[in-house]
Amino acid sequence: MSNWIMGGGPSNHIILSSRVRLARNLANTPFPLMLNKTSGADVIEKIYDEDTKNNIFKDYKFYDMQDTGFVDRYVLVERHLISPNLANHGSIGAALISQDEKVSIMLNEEDHIRIQTVLPGLQLKEAWTEASAIDDKIESKVDYAFDERLGYLTSCPTNVGTGLRASIMVHLPGLNISSNINKILNAVTQVGLTIRGIYGEGTEFIGNIFQISNQITLGRSEEETIDNLTGITEQIIDKEKEARSILLKSNKMLLEDRVWRAWGIMTNARSISGQESMKLLSEIRLGVDLGVLENIPISILNEIMVDTNNASLQKRIGTELNTPDRDIIRAEEIRKLLLQQ
Amino acid sequence: MSNWIMGGGPSNHIILSSRVRLARNLANTPFPLMLNKTSGADVIEKIYDEDTKNNIFKDYKFYDMQDTGFVDRYVLVERHLISPNLANHGSIGAALISQDEKVSIMLNEEDHIRIQTVLPGLQLKEAWTEASAIDDKIESKVDYAFDERLGYLTSCPTNVGTGLRASIMVHLPGLNISSNINKILNAVTQVGLTIRGIYGEGTEFIGNIFQISNQITLGRSEEETIDNLTGITEQIIDKEKEARSILLKSNKMLLEDRVWRAWGIMTNARSISGQESMKLLSEIRLGVDLGVLENIPISILNEIMVDTNNASLQKRIGTELNTPDRDIIRAEEIRKLLLQQ
Repeated sequence: MSNWIMGGGPSNHIILSSRVRLARNLANTPFPLMLNKTSGADVIEKIYDEDTKNNIFKDYKFYDMQDTGFVDRYVLVERHLISPNLANHGSIGAALISQDEKVSIMLNEEDHIRIQTVLPGLQLKEAWTEASAIDDKIESKVDYAFDERLGYLTSCPTNVGTGLRASIMVHLPGLNISSNINKILNAVTQVGLTIRGIYGEGTEFIGNIFQISNQITLGRSEEETIDNLTGITEQIIDKEKEARSILLKSNKMLLEDRVWRAWGIMTNARSISGQESMKLLSEIRLGVDLGVLENIPISILNEIMVDTNNASLQKRIGTELNTPDRDIIRAEEIRKLLLQQ
Repeated sequence: MSNWIMGGGPSNHIILSSRVRLARNLANTPFPLMLNKTSGADVIEKIYDEDTKNNIFKDYKFYDMQDTGFVDRYVLVERHLISPNLANHGSIGAALISQDEKVSIMLNEEDHIRIQTVLPGLQLKEAWTEASAIDDKIESKVDYAFDERLGYLTSCPTNVGTGLRASIMVHLPGLNISSNINKILNAVTQVGLTIRGIYGEGTEFIGNIFQISNQITLGRSEEETIDNLTGITEQIIDKEKEARSILLKSNKMLLEDRVWRAWGIMTNARSISGQESMKLLSEIRLGVDLGVLENIPISILNEIMVDTNNASLQKRIGTELNTPDRDIIRAEEIRKLLLQQ
C-alpha cells in the first residue's frame, strides 16, 4: 500500500496528503504532442536507459502505456499515480512508480518528464525535498530545456518557470456542514490558488474532499510556493477545526446521528454507488476524527476511497463489471474493509 | 406483553392482528354523551359491581380515566387498548383490560360498553367467539338496549344492528413497492369495507400498515360479517404474497439492499422520529418475512411498533420529554430491542 493511504503525517485528520509535481522537458527535443511512436520511444529511452534503470530507478516499476490494459491504467489513476490524460491518450507514454508509491514519474504525458511525490498529512516541504532530489538525479543524466530568464520550459505556458505544482488533498466536512465552505474556497481562489475535485481538473467535489494547489509557476521561487501553500493550508486547518468544534458544541447529537447512520448504511448496504460511498465515507471519516467511531484506522478509509473505485474493483474481481454489479461488489468490499476490525 | 404483540397466529407474516369490537348500551339509560359525572358513575357501577369484579372481571385491570394521567392513557392508546377518543374526552369513562391484553372493555366511551378482543394473525372467527362469550357474560348481568327489528342500539347510527366491527391490521409492503396498493385499497372500499391507518380513523397510513374493517352493521349477521372480512383478507394475503414473490424474482438485490439499509439505520441512528421508525420497521419486517434478516422474532418488531411511540417512551423513561429528546430515547430503545439478540 502506498504511503499516504496508510495515513499518518501532521494534521492527517484534515489533510489526507501533500503532493509535489515537477514538469521537466529534455533540451532540443519536441514536446510530447509533436512526437510519434518512434521519437516518443527515443525520449523514454533517453530517460530510462540501462544505467538509470539499475541506479536511479532500481526500486521503480516501469509501465509502458501501450502494454498496459485499460483497467490497469485506471487503477493507477484511481491511486493518484498517473493522470487521466496519460491513461486515456498515452500511446507514447510511460510511468515509473516507486515500490512504496511515494514517487511516480510520468514520461511523455504533456511534458517529457513529470515527477510526482506524495506524502501523508501536511508535508509539502518534505515532498518538495524528495521531488527535488529525484529531479537532481535525473538532471545529472539528461539535459533539461531551461531558459535563464524564464526557467524550466514546459508544454503548457502555465507551468513555465518552476514547473512546480504543489497541492494538498483536504477533507473539510465541518466547513461544509456549517455552510462556510464557499467562503473559504473563494478566499483560497483569491490568493492565487486553484481548487479541484478529488481526481483533478474538471472532476466534481464529492465527499467534502478538495485538492488545493498553486496556480503560479513564474516569478516565484519553489520555496516561496511551498511556504505560501503551507501557510494557507494551516489557516484552512484552523478554520475546519473551529467549524468542527462549533458543531460539536451546538449540535453534538445531530452530528453523532449523521456519523452513525453513515456507518450503519456503509456496513449494511448491499449495493452502493461510488458517489454515495464517497459521501458516506466523509461522514465516517469525520466520526473517526471526532472520536465518535473508535478503532477504525484512517488507512481503511483511504483504502475504501481509492480501492473501491470502478477500475480498482474490476481489477480486484478480475472481470469486467456492469454498473449494477459494480455497485454490489463495491458494497461487499466496503463491508469487508470496515468490518475486518 | 399482550398476545398479538407476541406474534404468531395464521398468516402472521402479513396479518399482524385480528380485532373484534362490539358496541353495547344499557337499556333505559341515556347514551354517554348525555351523562354527567354522577350518572356516568352509575353506569360504570352497574357494569362493574362487586359481583362482576370478582367473577367476570377477576383478571382485569380497571382504569378510571379520571384517575389516569395523560401519559398512562396514551400508553393504552398506543397499545391499541383504548381509543384516542376515550383518552382525550374520557371524564366519565373507564376501561377494563384483561391481564393478557387480549380483551379490553371501554365504558362510557361513545357507547356504554365496547368490548374488544384482539388475537395475533388472521383469527377473526376466534376473536368473535371470544368477544361473544364476554358479551354473553355481561348480558347475563345487565339489560342491553335492543330493538327486535333493528338489533343493538348504539350512540352512532352506523353501529346499530350487530354493533360489530371486525378488523384486521395488515402489513402490505409488497403491494406498496410494486405500486399496486391503491388498486387493492380501492377494491376493498368498493366491497363495503373501510381502510384506516394504524391508530384508527383519520390517522395516516404509515409503515405500510393498514386497518381494514367492515362498514355495515345492519342487515347482515355477525357470522356473515366475519366470513366476508376473512374471505377478503385471504384474497389480500394472496395478492401481497404474489407481489413479494414477483419483487424477489425481478429485483432480489434491490430488495435486500433496502432491507439491510433499514437495518443499518435502525441499529445505528442516534435520533429517529416515530414516522421514520415506522417506515424502516416496515422494511425490516419485510426482510424478516423474506428470510433476508434472520433470528429476529416478530414480537420484537411489534414491540418497537407499539412501545417506542411517544407516550410509551415517556412512560418507560419516567419523565416528560420534548421532541428532540424523544427521538434520541426512541433511537436508544430501538437499538436495545433490535440488538438484544
